[in-house]
Amino acid sequence: MAIHFPKNRVLKYIGAHDGITAKLIEKYGFDGVWSSGFEISASYAVPDANILTMSQYLERAEEMRDSINIPILADCDTGYGNAINAVHTVKKFESAGIDAICVEDKLFPKVNSYIAGRQPLARIEEFVGKLEAIIKVRTSISVVARVEALIAKQGMKEAIKRAHAYADVGVDAILIHSKSRSYEEIYEFAELWNKRLPLVIVPTSYPQVSISDVGRLGVSMVVFANVCMRTKVRYISEMLNVLSDSDSLYSVDSYLCTMGEIFELQGMKEFKETEENYLR
Amino acid sequence: MAIHFPKNRVLKYIGAHDGITAKLIEKYGFDGVWSSGFEISASYAVPDANILTMSQYLERAEEMRDSINIPILADCDTGYGNAINAVHTVKKFESAGIDAICVEDKLFPKVNSYIAGRQPLARIEEFVGKLEAIIKVRTSISVVARVEALIAKQGMKEAIKRAHAYADVGVDAILIHSKSRSYEEIYEFAELWNKRLPLVIVPTSYPQVSISDVGRLGVSMVVFANVCMRTKVRYISEMLNVLSDSDSLYSVDSYLCTMGEIFELQGMKEFKETEENYLR
Amino acid sequence: MAIHFPKNRVLKYIGAHDGITAKLIEKYGFDGVWSSGFEISASYAVPDANILTMSQYLERAEEMRDSINIPILADCDTGYGNAINAVHTVKKFESAGIDAICVEDKLFPKVNSYIAGRQPLARIEEFVGKLEAIIKVRTSISVVARVEALIAKQGMKEAIKRAHAYADVGVDAILIHSKSRSYEEIYEFAELWNKRLPLVIVPTSYPQVSISDVGRLGVSMVVFANVCMRTKVRYISEMLNVLSDSDSLYSVDSYLCTMGEIFELQGMKEFKETEENYLR
Amino acid sequence: MAIHFPKNRVLKYIGAHDGITAKLIEKYGFDGVWSSGFEISASYAVPDANILTMSQYLERAEEMRDSINIPILADCDTGYGNAINAVHTVKKFESAGIDAICVEDKLFPKVNSYIAGRQPLARIEEFVGKLEAIIKVRTSISVVARVEALIAKQGMKEAIKRAHAYADVGVDAILIHSKSRSYEEIYEFAELWNKRLPLVIVPTSYPQVSISDVGRLGVSMVVFANVCMRTKVRYISEMLNVLSDSDSLYSVDSYLCTMGEIFELQGMKEFKETEENYLR
Repeated sequence: MAIHFPKNRVLKYIGAHDGITAKLIEKYGFDGVWSSGFEISASYAVPDANILTMSQYLERAEEMRDSINIPILADCDTGYGNAINAVHTVKKFESAGIDAICVEDKLFPKVNSYIAGRQPLARIEEFVGKLEAIIKVRTSISVVARVEALIAKQGMKEAIKRAHAYADVGVDAILIHSKSRSYEEIYEFAELWNKRLPLVIVPTSYPQVSISDVGRLGVSMVVFANVCMRTKVRYISEMLNVLSDSDSLYSVDSYLCTMGEIFELQGMKEFKETEENYLR
Repeated sequence: MAIHFPKNRVLKYIGAHDGITAKLIEKYGFDGVWSSGFEISASYAVPDANILTMSQYLERAEEMRDSINIPILADCDTGYGNAINAVHTVKKFESAGIDAICVEDKLFPKVNSYIAGRQPLARIEEFVGKLEAIIKVRTSISVVARVEALIAKQGMKEAIKRAHAYADVGVDAILIHSKSRSYEEIYEFAELWNKRLPLVIVPTSYPQVSISDVGRLGVSMVVFANVCMRTKVRYISEMLNVLSDSDSLYSVDSYLCTMGEIFELQGMKEFKETEENYLR
Repeated sequence: MAIHFPKNRVLKYIGAHDGITAKLIEKYGFDGVWSSGFEISASYAVPDANILTMSQYLERAEEMRDSINIPILADCDTGYGNAINAVHTVKKFESAGIDAICVEDKLFPKVNSYIAGRQPLARIEEFVGKLEAIIKVRTSISVVARVEALIAKQGMKEAIKRAHAYADVGVDAILIHSKSRSYEEIYEFAELWNKRLPLVIVPTSYPQVSISDVGRLGVSMVVFANVCMRTKVRYISEMLNVLSDSDSLYSVDSYLCTMGEIFELQGMKEFKETEENYLR
Repeated sequence: MAIHFPKNRVLKYIGAHDGITAKLIEKYGFDGVWSSGFEISASYAVPDANILTMSQYLERAEEMRDSINIPILADCDTGYGNAINAVHTVKKFESAGIDAICVEDKLFPKVNSYIAGRQPLARIEEFVGKLEAIIKVRTSISVVARVEALIAKQGMKEAIKRAHAYADVGVDAILIHSKSRSYEEIYEFAELWNKRLPLVIVPTSYPQVSISDVGRLGVSMVVFANVCMRTKVRYISEMLNVLSDSDSLYSVDSYLCTMGEIFELQGMKEFKETEENYLR
């Protein structure tokens, strides 16, 4: 189990927070699922700052794996501690059948990259040691190294330097993270990087970027990391707001899919077949 | 921790499947959260048929409790087995700080009441034994007995007979379940019941029912059991459908709430205060 | 991942309840680990009667798998419900990397076979349906069918009839359970069975049986299912009894292994190597 | 739920790693249970170095709470991260019904104090901030601050200085840790401390110390932190060694308690009563 990065196509991965979001992502034909630290934390209503434990992120990734057949790339923050914790993390995700993990060069406990304030980076040799340890114990799971130098305002030169150091260790792809409102930063990085290894981007702050354009620059995967949670919160809020002022459930009927649509996503067809064939 | 059923008002409870849906329910001013077996199963993308274990339902109820201050009524199916399992279930939910549990008079493993087919009821004396065992070990948690006789097509007389038998044992409320498309069935039950104990209804199949009207008939709580999941699936489906045909994230911008709205639900304000006051 | 049953040798499996008991079983050269429902329940101090959930048994089996390299045969009681639950169970244990599961022909919730009283069997066609469903969805994991007819006092003829029915469905081995204080019952079964499929026995109540002798009769595996827990309780009790009357820890010194012995079982050598090589 | 430290008596707490060890500790009359990070890690066969997550330590503490009625003091390492993680930790342990937590002034991920090598301390103001944050959010749970200055070879003066700084913040007791082979170090600390707050000691490396003697010096609690695990490993090793060379289970009969003794610890009496009274 691993992720194959094709040369001539940009993979589209979508962030999920539970089994049914993963299932919908598969249903609509996307290439894979990003088991999102942000989405999972948000689903618990706790900050994306390693308040949840590795056990809890892993459980949700397993819930996704049990519900779909497309690949899963798990957002593993910093590996949840030092190199020793990261070794344990990659073993657990690999034996759970996850296809790839992404680890970032910040310090535990990390804080979500879009939050202003503390974003301290690990020293470069410290993070290289962590990646070497991960690469040594993994068997087939892909490893994506996430460069946070631009988030931490350390500049393009530092970002490129770190990406090369991580590539030297044998990771399978580089995720270059940016929260610039323009895609110039990513363009510049991609040009300097010059297709040494597959690139992954997360265009939350620069949503207007064209996937075909970045594909030509060497980007192999685009992750839309938080769209399921943001859609969920937006429409459940609206629906509850209407319902709270109403004297009947009928007031929100237009917000609801049918029960049957959900039964189908729950695998009711296979369930009924098992029932008919084997319940005696 | 218990639920108080007022005389002159109908409580509105909404089904949730995780911490953030519970938090939104609290934010929009509802009286409490229904920790929904259907919603939780659906979030895992598995049938609502005791495929998930009590441990998994309990974890989600705890996740909700940690995120809100309004009461939680946990849908505990049949108590997850016989009277001995039910005793264990009520102890675990009570020590987790849940306010009330609901147990139904079907057999383990149950199948969701809206699914055609097998809906076998427990014998009346069997379920009464289970309720007695639960009442004996609970300290303060409220107990709601759910009557499935109408779902199982056993008729109104059987439904009333069971409700009285359960009330005799000391439960705090009766949930009378119906999947009729009309609210006549519930009206009839409520009149015959004549306010002996608080009544709870779940108007999924008869959404047009007026809350004020049923209040006058003695209904103390209305549970809108699956609206969060049905809204979530409806809009995430739409958004993913648009995104799958698009060359940029910008195409679905109008579906998304801001990151800031989610940060707020995650308790970012309290997080920042702890950071400022105590991180040194 | 599966269990291979050799023709000319009796496999010795030992019951474990956590990672370190599994590790000790591996260290002393046994063929495999029985992830024991009885031992795991006992470690939680709850009855062996499906009080714990499948999630909890699975977690402990995963804890064992992470700590050893020898095969694990997981005691899965009845599959934790009906055929649909059993399908879910085998999928979860297989994807967790467990080598084999054992399912028994009793009803959920089961009660430990050594406890007097209720031991109702599933109807034969009901259990055959469950086994067919399991066999259909498993990929490589071995399936052992456990015959409880002798425990339920249904006689030898019923036991043999059931074993053949289960073998017809394609299981990999038959576990014939007996709580007779003599091994005559097992001898008789083995002779009648005549090596159609590998046999597994659990000689808790007839410990004097000779492994070489039963090997000649066609027994392929002997499970010593509860010896770790029974040794643990015996000696911790003794040690605590001494300590409770004493004015210093020194009084129980002779009961204790060194801290170093435990550090070694915890993998301190590999830990120190990771620390030296990768912590920078 | 809190721990009361009496003036005129030394509490004896014993380290446990699961429900049944906790139950045995209660049975033999000890004052309380130490939910031991070392014992729990060892039971998973992983190093005591925050390889396990807070979720896993919490689960085991809950397993203990469900099986006993005496108080539990949970060893929470550093609080599993920074002040923000520690706030989350104390909330979770308090709502799980645990009576007290112990947090130590090292850095996450910590390494067991008896292992030679890295034992870096948190800066004093950093740990004081963490304790303030914990004290602010706890309601009733007791908080024990563990001073590791002697373990880290920072000297007696630093140890006393830290203990006073932690006491100033409002903790309920100080655990002074030492791995000296003599009890001189603890005596010296206790004299200098002069009974400002209750003291807790863990005499693993100086087992000969007299409980009555330290009681006179102001020690309020002695924790025998690892005796259950060390007894378990010692005797299961012996038993397995004998069994591995043997042709029958009978060879280890003298190592085993009866099944009945374990049934009793599993609460079989209460189970049978529920069965008789409520299973119909």
